[in-house]
Amino acid sequence: MPDRLVELAHGGGGTMTAELIALIREYVGNPLLDRLEDSATLDLAGRTAFTTDSFVVSPLEFPGGDIGRLAVCGTVNDLAVVGAIPRYISLALVIEEGLPFERLGRLLSSVRAAAEEAGVVIACGDTKVVERGKADGLYINTSGLGSIPDGANVSVHNAVPGDAVLISGEIGLHGVAVLAARGGLGFASSARSDVAPLNGLLAPLVAEIDVHAMRDPTRGGCSAALHEIAGASGVSIVLDEASLPVPPVVAGACELLGTDPLEMPNEGKALVVVPEGRAARAAELLRVHPYGRAAVQIGRVTRRGPFPVTLATALGERLVEAPRGELLPRIC
Amino acid sequence: MPDRLVELAHGGGGTMTAELIALIREYVGNPLLDRLEDSATLDLAGRTAFTTDSFVVSPLEFPGGDIGRLAVCGTVNDLAVVGAIPRYISLALVIEEGLPFERLGRLLSSVRAAAEEAGVVIACGDTKVVERGKADGLYINTSGLGSIPDGANVSVHNAVPGDAVLISGEIGLHGVAVLAARGGLGFASSARSDVAPLNGLLAPLVAEIDVHAMRDPTRGGCSAALHEIAGASGVSIVLDEASLPVPPVVAGACELLGTDPLEMPNEGKALVVVPEGRAARAAELLRVHPYGRAAVQIGRVTRRGPFPVTLATALGERLVEAPRGELLPRIC
Repeated sequence: MPDRLVELAHGGGGTMTAELIALIREYVGNPLLDRLEDSATLDLAGRTAFTTDSFVVSPLEFPGGDIGRLAVCGTVNDLAVVGAIPRYISLALVIEEGLPFERLGRLLSSVRAAAEEAGVVIACGDTKVVERGKADGLYINTSGLGSIPDGANVSVHNAVPGDAVLISGEIGLHGVAVLAARGGLGFASSARSDVAPLNGLLAPLVAEIDVHAMRDPTRGGCSAALHEIAGASGVSIVLDEASLPVPPVVAGACELLGTDPLEMPNEGKALVVVPEGRAARAAELLRVHPYGRAAVQIGRVTRRGPFPVTLATALGERLVEAPRGELLPRIC
Repeated sequence: MPDRLVELAHGGGGTMTAELIALIREYVGNPLLDRLEDSATLDLAGRTAFTTDSFVVSPLEFPGGDIGRLAVCGTVNDLAVVGAIPRYISLALVIEEGLPFERLGRLLSSVRAAAEEAGVVIACGDTKVVERGKADGLYINTSGLGSIPDGANVSVHNAVPGDAVLISGEIGLHGVAVLAARGGLGFASSARSDVAPLNGLLAPLVAEIDVHAMRDPTRGGCSAALHEIAGASGVSIVLDEASLPVPPVVAGACELLGTDPLEMPNEGKALVVVPEGRAARAAELLRVHPYGRAAVQIGRVTRRGPFPVTLATALGERLVEAPRGELLPRIC
């Protein structure tokens, strides 16, 4: 059915909805989903992490990824950065009337591939259809459940003075790739989104090291994430400009836009806060994983100073402001 | 800030997003949400039910309810009809640029009131903003987690010949109320949506009776829900027309629209399948609850016949077809 389009009636709850669900099951079906109960039944024990995220990225497909991969990775990463082992996700689609079945199928293939890579099971789902002109093709919400290993105590509240701050790789690639795909840079860019599931990268770290805090620097970039950690933990964070892994393609785009690579969103990076003495080992553990090859320490936690986040440069220390948000709507 | 509007930059992940989140916390904040982690940490043990639902109802407010109450009740009810005790929900908002803060606040008050009534905790949330013309003001996704009591085994797969089929009250009110609010009936209607959380109604039933199957007849109405039970359980269901609780306002609207009250959506009703000998007790238990006053047996389960669902009328038996879905887009 290469030319078949989603119609409003596919959302009405009748036999046409059943047809749409059959298509979805072709791509992401599994024994849990196939039971078609109103809720999935899971066996969970101990501490469970629960998170939700809606994805409205525009365009739906961009260099390095698409909304399907993004929707799985975003939620998997929100679980991974609290130290949890992601286990189950939900998948709720709001589809614009007129979306070709073929394109929906392609995006769902991407959902499945990302879920398989991350090792999470799609436990439940929902489908709604809205009129043409709404929802830009597809919005996806995923919620996720993960198991928190005994002993893990990773929280944005737990950074303490003396801790080291690491980033798992080069920053800003997702933001620049999506902006370029929109034509928003005014020039072609070779940037590819870094969108990736980070649980395989971060689990060994949490298993071996007393990780204090982690955050995936998505909307608002590293700047927003570091402000959140500093605020929640009541500390300041000093970054070392020379060590920031800013790839040339991001540096160039940011110069053009007059913005800061620290504000550029990432979808496959983690900020990791560990005791100072464990920083070298943490970097080593990150670098053995394909998604952590460029991991590096970028700063340290200090006692709460006048500014939450600062950047030590060759010319002295400068304030890193929390981004306001005008630059990058619909980036995830 | 009565005239303040949501702007696109409120979704950018910066300080303006923080302002929007502050507003949301004013209405639905609690200690779990206030921790602002990427995931909430919960203690769950034993069998857990997990469900997700997106709500795109148009208009956002309608007689008897609004999208806020609907988003909580819809997910609570999906948990309740598998026999679970609803415990936690997520709350993900996709907001259209230009939505007045005041209206958002009113809808969030409704979320809070419904969550309090149902006894569920909002454990995590997310906020995105999309451009004017998208999302009709507000789309909400909620996912839910519930604990399944030991011994409960409620499933759409478990209906067996001989079982009784009950409905917890009058049918079709949500569908007619929303259609009327849209002006889709062409006349004024006194119908009010039945949107309500059903966990308080259904838990005593599950605790006392070996309930085989339940379903909340939302999109596609009783017809779709009964087809799903019949299909999943490999049985047929025969309804008794004379016992169907169709209120005059629904009967009138359906006559005008040339549709069947069995296809009209409900948001505060449950279809309940129990062993024949327990039907009277089940009705009794339902009727003591304010949301179950008009509970009544409407049919029975038979061995799989040529048709999944039929209606016994004064003139003989007629086929109840599965609805296709054209009539009622955006009803939930």
